[in-house]
Amino acid sequence: MKTDTTHASGAPAVVGAPWPDFSAALTAAAEGVEAALDACLPQPTAALGERELVDAMRYAVMGGGKRLRAFLAVEAGRLMGADPARALRCGAALECLHAYSLVHDDLPCMDDDDLRRGKPTVHRAWDEATAVLAGDALQTVAFEILADPATHPDGAVRASLCLRLAQASGAAGMVGGQALDLAAEKAAERADGGVLDGVSVKRLQAMKTGALLEVAAELGALVAEAPAAAVAAIRAYARALGEAFQIADDLLDVTGTEAEVGKRVGKDADAGKATFVDILGIDGARARAQALVDEAAAALAPFGAGAGLLTAAAQFVVDRRS
Amino acid sequence: MKTDTTHASGAPAVVGAPWPDFSAALTAAAEGVEAALDACLPQPTAALGERELVDAMRYAVMGGGKRLRAFLAVEAGRLMGADPARALRCGAALECLHAYSLVHDDLPCMDDDDLRRGKPTVHRAWDEATAVLAGDALQTVAFEILADPATHPDGAVRASLCLRLAQASGAAGMVGGQALDLAAEKAAERADGGVLDGVSVKRLQAMKTGALLEVAAELGALVAEAPAAAVAAIRAYARALGEAFQIADDLLDVTGTEAEVGKRVGKDADAGKATFVDILGIDGARARAQALVDEAAAALAPFGAGAGLLTAAAQFVVDRRS
Repeated sequence: MKTDTTHASGAPAVVGAPWPDFSAALTAAAEGVEAALDACLPQPTAALGERELVDAMRYAVMGGGKRLRAFLAVEAGRLMGADPARALRCGAALECLHAYSLVHDDLPCMDDDDLRRGKPTVHRAWDEATAVLAGDALQTVAFEILADPATHPDGAVRASLCLRLAQASGAAGMVGGQALDLAAEKAAERADGGVLDGVSVKRLQAMKTGALLEVAAELGALVAEAPAAAVAAIRAYARALGEAFQIADDLLDVTGTEAEVGKRVGKDADAGKATFVDILGIDGARARAQALVDEAAAALAPFGAGAGLLTAAAQFVVDRRS
Repeated sequence: MKTDTTHASGAPAVVGAPWPDFSAALTAAAEGVEAALDACLPQPTAALGERELVDAMRYAVMGGGKRLRAFLAVEAGRLMGADPARALRCGAALECLHAYSLVHDDLPCMDDDDLRRGKPTVHRAWDEATAVLAGDALQTVAFEILADPATHPDGAVRASLCLRLAQASGAAGMVGGQALDLAAEKAAERADGGVLDGVSVKRLQAMKTGALLEVAAELGALVAEAPAAAVAAIRAYARALGEAFQIADDLLDVTGTEAEVGKRVGKDADAGKATFVDILGIDGARARAQALVDEAAAALAPFGAGAGLLTAAAQFVVDRRS
């Protein structure tokens, strides 16, 4: 599989992928969410001071990334009969939330990264204060989009979208996972035997990365007003996909090149971070990732052939090169 | 008026205030919101990594501050017949949102403050990364509280609480105001004639401080399912109170002492910031603040004598010493 990151739409086109329908669907979701983001974000017409903030917000979230979270929301929504525009708004909210976490994780006091998706990070392109504020406002926009009547006419649906996103992305989810990651890094620096075991790495990654991927698929189901059993099945699917995604990330950090991946590689080892590759070895990690792809596919069994694109997405996350 | 910041409840007791009912109500709201926060925040029983995050979140939001935003939500809610527990949850959400903004504003890349309410700021007590993450997670908790069915049984009410808080606190409100403030400071450093005029200072402060005070009163009215005219009246009241609050802050920065105010004073002048005092002078600023108190009281006229505590609150914000 080759990834052409210069595709005119700004979305990564997957050239020659073994799943032509999947790559077309991923591209379509990425294009759809780009338009939804453009409509939902503040317009770059503000006065000087806010103009920088709005430019930085748009820079951080638009025109980049695989849009995997948006795809999961859109495709889970399609499978369960959601209005496509509503599912796209959920996708836009998820991408805002994800982008905020990347902007803050890249800060000098956190992972201190200069490069993200092959471009300077927000604090490099502007400054640290603008990066903190742009991340803050991107988080706010995520909840603003979900709470807006344009996302669903039923207020109970909108409130449940907000609640689930908050639960997945706060101290018990994404932000808690990042805190665990920093604590593990500090423990490794002190060389006091603080390197995590397999159970801890799995928990950390489930919080840091898995929770948002899981809720992405869930929001698609919720905006479709799917029955509870279908929501549970799609969550089980996305949970397996999320763990596979993180194992693939750990593998890319060891085996990928910076040009392919679009960000610094080898940084987990530099930071003394425990990863799935440390614990399972390269071959063991590959085998575990494939087992999780199978587990994700099995969770989709109740949906029959209509879930083919979601099954393909699970395979994609372990086969991708960036 | 003297403020005893060592009151056992952690809430500031206003000793010998000319409005005994108001100071009792402010203390009661502060105690109520403290209990609501304790119930809504993650418990400090998490594993090592998250424990630091949870401790920092609780440190930032509990046991401090006047709780003016919570008071406005609780008192507007009481005036319009809200269930008190629901209004308190709105107050807790507002205090989490406010605390997140203070933690991030205090960061070295922003205002670089070591002291907040007489205690070390979060990045001084822990470190910058923990302060960024604790602020992030406090913002998330604010929306989590409002979206939770415990805040109101009607999902449409919960969604409108989330939507209005997001609109008031994002790029078009609080965060946008902070971005304007930083941009004005940078312009002043360059000495390129960037000092703001009166219209710009008013707009900046309306976004940075006013928007959250206004939405605080509004959430109390919304959780009471008050009619649109009552919501509009309470917003007009809180808008005037918010501007008066900021003028009083500018006056305190010039005339207060660090021991009284609990944070560094004189920092606006040091930073070359344009304030209401620069534009109006000390006497002019005091007169304008009092006119706004009268404007706030006039907006409450439709509610009759029941609004006495809110009227007293408007006087309090200009007479306070911290």
